[in-house]
Amino acid sequence: MAETIFSKILRGEVPCHEVYQDEHVFAFLDIGPLAPGHTLVIPKEPAETLDQLSDEAAAAIGRVLPRLCRAVMKATGCEQYNILQNNGTRAHQAVMHVHFHIIPKPTPEQGLGIRWHPGKLPDEEGQAMRQKILAALE
Amino acid sequence: MAETIFSKILRGEVPCHEVYQDEHVFAFLDIGPLAPGHTLVIPKEPAETLDQLSDEAAAAIGRVLPRLCRAVMKATGCEQYNILQNNGTRAHQAVMHVHFHIIPKPTPEQGLGIRWHPGKLPDEEGQAMRQKILAALE
Repeated sequence: MAETIFSKILRGEVPCHEVYQDEHVFAFLDIGPLAPGHTLVIPKEPAETLDQLSDEAAAAIGRVLPRLCRAVMKATGCEQYNILQNNGTRAHQAVMHVHFHIIPKPTPEQGLGIRWHPGKLPDEEGQAMRQKILAALE
Repeated sequence: MAETIFSKILRGEVPCHEVYQDEHVFAFLDIGPLAPGHTLVIPKEPAETLDQLSDEAAAAIGRVLPRLCRAVMKATGCEQYNILQNNGTRAHQAVMHVHFHIIPKPTPEQGLGIRWHPGKLPDEEGQAMRQKILAALE
């Protein structure tokens, strides 16, 4: 994996506002916050995208997310928030090291803005997609 | 926690296109997909928002996400995708049972649309917020 700004943060070569770390996980404030308290949660393991991350590192991030969310909620007084994790530049990934955003949503204007244009899932399409995913999981 | 459509899906009372389950986790196709392969990953444990979910259930979801992402990528042929998990109605949560979206991003028009208006984090604000989060974590 190529060096990123997060590699340098993990090595302590670039400063950050660290809020948490354990064996697998490091968390710090986003310097371009969408709302106060916007926090990044990253694996210490180098991986560009979530599909490339080890099960163990992904489980460690999952385990600590509820606790970090509670702390961000308490610190900001904001009870609503989004978790976002982007994979690939088309999907808005800007730093090629896995990162989960915790983004408080204090007002409709602040925080993450979402455009949601749902389609439909006809039963036959759903069945076909399900079979493909089941086959890929084997 | 109040009953939701996901409670009924978990009990088998409402049909779905199931793609995965284990002791803690259940995954199925979203019937209003933002792109083909749009998948929902939910805990079997009832919890409205991520901050209310047990560490164990959250770790189990984290652990299986990379594998599910690889399967959705393989099934759809789409290598770019977003993980989104919304908490609270203002943050676009529509079903009050924790759910992680895996949303393929095959084209700029399909998949999740994101509005991103970052602010700045002056050092003194970052230090103050960090202290609040550290205090909340104790």
